Amino acid sequence: MEKQNYNHLTRTFQRLSRFGHLSAIAGWDMFTNMPPNGSTARGEALAELSVLQHQILTDKKIATLLQAAVQEDLNDVERANLREMTRQYQEAILLPASLVEEKSLVGTRCEHGWRTQRPANDWQGFAANLKEVVRVCREEAKLRADAKGKSCYDALLDIYEPGMTSAKLDVLFGDLRSWLPDLLQKVVDKQAKESVITPTGPFATHDQRELGLETMKLLGFDFNGGRLDVSAHPFCGGVPEDVRITTRYDESDLVSALFGVIHETGHARYEQNLPREWLGQPVALARSTAIHESQSLFFEMQLGRSKEFLKLLLPMVTTRFGKQPAFEAANFIAVNQRVERGYIRVDADEVSYPAHVVLRYEIERALIDGEIEVEDIPALWDEKMQHWLGLSTKNNFRNGCMQDIHWTDGAFGYFPSYTLGAMYAAQLFNAAKLALPQLEADIAEGNFSALFDWLRQNIWQHGSRFTTSELITNATGEDLNPLYFRKHLEARYL
Amino acid sequence: MEKQNYNHLTRTFQRLSRFGHLSAIAGWDMFTNMPPNGSTARGEALAELSVLQHQILTDKKIATLLQAAVQEDLNDVERANLREMTRQYQEAILLPASLVEEKSLVGTRCEHGWRTQRPANDWQGFAANLKEVVRVCREEAKLRADAKGKSCYDALLDIYEPGMTSAKLDVLFGDLRSWLPDLLQKVVDKQAKESVITPTGPFATHDQRELGLETMKLLGFDFNGGRLDVSAHPFCGGVPEDVRITTRYDESDLVSALFGVIHETGHARYEQNLPREWLGQPVALARSTAIHESQSLFFEMQLGRSKEFLKLLLPMVTTRFGKQPAFEAANFIAVNQRVERGYIRVDADEVSYPAHVVLRYEIERALIDGEIEVEDIPALWDEKMQHWLGLSTKNNFRNGCMQDIHWTDGAFGYFPSYTLGAMYAAQLFNAAKLALPQLEADIAEGNFSALFDWLRQNIWQHGSRFTTSELITNATGEDLNPLYFRKHLEARYL
Repeated sequence: MEKQNYNHLTRTFQRLSRFGHLSAIAGWDMFTNMPPNGSTARGEALAELSVLQHQILTDKKIATLLQAAVQEDLNDVERANLREMTRQYQEAILLPASLVEEKSLVGTRCEHGWRTQRPANDWQGFAANLKEVVRVCREEAKLRADAKGKSCYDALLDIYEPGMTSAKLDVLFGDLRSWLPDLLQKVVDKQAKESVITPTGPFATHDQRELGLETMKLLGFDFNGGRLDVSAHPFCGGVPEDVRITTRYDESDLVSALFGVIHETGHARYEQNLPREWLGQPVALARSTAIHESQSLFFEMQLGRSKEFLKLLLPMVTTRFGKQPAFEAANFIAVNQRVERGYIRVDADEVSYPAHVVLRYEIERALIDGEIEVEDIPALWDEKMQHWLGLSTKNNFRNGCMQDIHWTDGAFGYFPSYTLGAMYAAQLFNAAKLALPQLEADIAEGNFSALFDWLRQNIWQHGSRFTTSELITNATGEDLNPLYFRKHLEARYL
Repeated sequence: MEKQNYNHLTRTFQRLSRFGHLSAIAGWDMFTNMPPNGSTARGEALAELSVLQHQILTDKKIATLLQAAVQEDLNDVERANLREMTRQYQEAILLPASLVEEKSLVGTRCEHGWRTQRPANDWQGFAANLKEVVRVCREEAKLRADAKGKSCYDALLDIYEPGMTSAKLDVLFGDLRSWLPDLLQKVVDKQAKESVITPTGPFATHDQRELGLETMKLLGFDFNGGRLDVSAHPFCGGVPEDVRITTRYDESDLVSALFGVIHETGHARYEQNLPREWLGQPVALARSTAIHESQSLFFEMQLGRSKEFLKLLLPMVTTRFGKQPAFEAANFIAVNQRVERGYIRVDADEVSYPAHVVLRYEIERALIDGEIEVEDIPALWDEKMQHWLGLSTKNNFRNGCMQDIHWTDGAFGYFPSYTLGAMYAAQLFNAAKLALPQLEADIAEGNFSALFDWLRQNIWQHGSRFTTSELITNATGEDLNPLYFRKHLEARYL
């Protein structure tokens, strides 16, 4: 039996993937290279492209082809590909092209303004742009919610993590609420008794970059298919064939950029090992943002901040920056396992990190569901930071609600992925340890081949072939279970 | 009277311009940043985009709109815009989409191979790819030639310099042939009697870059709307709102990268001063490749290698690289006005440069017109280099016929622009001198505002409003006259 409808669809999705390539590279360039006066034209170009992609995806022929292809003789991968095509189509068809264009434009404008407004602590200027983003995203959420029969916020959440709901999140985050504040307090108290020496800079940007590159190499990053650059907000962008990760350097702080690089390398290796033979098709895409975060946090937290890995890093550090008391092994481990209540999410340790996420989740859900307005954000932020971390962000917008880039381009529903990712990462690392009895010794020797093979076989090579639930169950024997994250934190920090 | 057809066209061309923006940025990235394994996907993405642009431009509605718009009440600029729209449409409608896609794909492949084949002197490997490019370009030229009633080569030439023909070029280049070899010999003989000290390196890349940036600033480059980067082959890319120039550094050679930067800055200032209010429309584009080259050569040769400018550069050089005998004023001028018969076009002085261009012009014309084949190029190159410059390129492909990037992506018909540009530059500089009696004193003082105002008023601000002939006549009082180029060379070098 011929698969002509399915084959027609694969050609259309390959075309979409090529336009997505241009969008990814131009988007990466916007954050790494673009001078300020290029912003308006870039925003218009990307918006034009997003309208085109939306038109192609919502062409009325697509619905017919999707329906007809279901009847065709497809193998398992093709059937998974068809499922992902259908999901993309259904997400796209809900939005009119005008809204897609508007979202792209207001997002670019808000992000561009944020670059100068954040350092200037200019909440008023930022809020004016953010209101436009929120207005458009509420419109989007309403359309999606009506079609999906979900709440507005859940209808956005579903884009990043298919099948996730705020009811499920409330259970998972409710569990966290029951033990995390207590654990955090215990760890802070315990560490208060230990004296830790902070590494003394300056650490030249050039040397930090070289250290980052060497670490990426150690972690298997393929430089024939990717790069490391600088941006205000670190991210992993580009395309699977050409993965672009970024970091930012602070000459007084050695570990921030380094662990940023390790984090993004986790994202990058996932992208660089997505199934090559299916690239260009939806089934070859990363499973979800939470699974993506699970890979970056697997690298940064599970692997990167383990004692074994830190000991491995140490000679790479001292070769470049010389010896100092802070670089004694025990102290270097303590520095990188330090738990502190801080303002900045991306600099947070893994114990306090979930607090940053739950706070954002609660605010963005209320914002999208229309329970609060943009003006209410700073006060809520301050209140929740006080509650979770005992810190005030009053009038400190740049280190409070203006610190992240996600809301600027309307990525409401993304934040929960970070903590879901941390939970998945702990569960995956636990399963890898069970499967690889030599794992700790391997890590201590810098031999990651068995570990990366395990990740490749269990996560990377599957792309979107399975649902998140199937993927994690196949890899670990059970669906998401937050117990592993708790056990991991207790074992490392208590 | 309403201009609804014209307005419909401006929206379509604005859309095309936005897609052109993405193509320009992704193209720039390909030469500056892209790792090798990104090449295939990038090539496919750019080819997909070029097919889309071609489809939009050749939509059957466009012909109707263009015809109807002629009857509408348009002002002079709008009428010029309509003329340029019509020209773009007519050039595009001659080619089937499949050929557009194929040209893009074979071009990307040939360019990508060239990056490693050139250093390896691998003519056989390169020739295999180039044959594909030539095959596609001959097909293109045939289609254009049949439609335009021109020879195949002339039909390509016309794309870069509207109205230019090989008959006209034969007259202009014939004139060169009558006096250039003799002039070259005289200059070389004269300079053989002068002893010149070559600057002694190494000149650190970082410092060369800083010097380049300072020179760009001196020359009015707007860093809020542009950048300087590195690529194997220097070029000016990006979009008018975000102009990307590149250079390459050789730590043993100070002046090559520096004058490359000055050259590209000339291109960049043209782009950065194209009429802002018409950006996105064809009338806002640079007039032609020859006029573009006239601006880069105005900066590099007319201005940059003048005694006054070289004296201005000198303290910027010695501040970074210290004093040495080669940096005495008279010697530094002699170094930068040195005439030498060399292999490499982009490193050639302005006296021998036309030889490189005429050689390429003769070969590419014969190649496109089917009189020779790709296999014949190396022998012809060697023969013509021997004839013009007394140098053999036998088996030295990388410094012979593999040195340039133009043919790799099928830009046959481009090379004559360089020498036409040199002629226009000399004619324009002569006119500027007549209009600005203080010019030499101004340059000596680093005061370029009157000169740049003159260029802005006479060239930059007009975009494609006038034909090349009208533009140059308005600016200088006559059409292209190669006498000014000859006079300039004689005055500077004899």
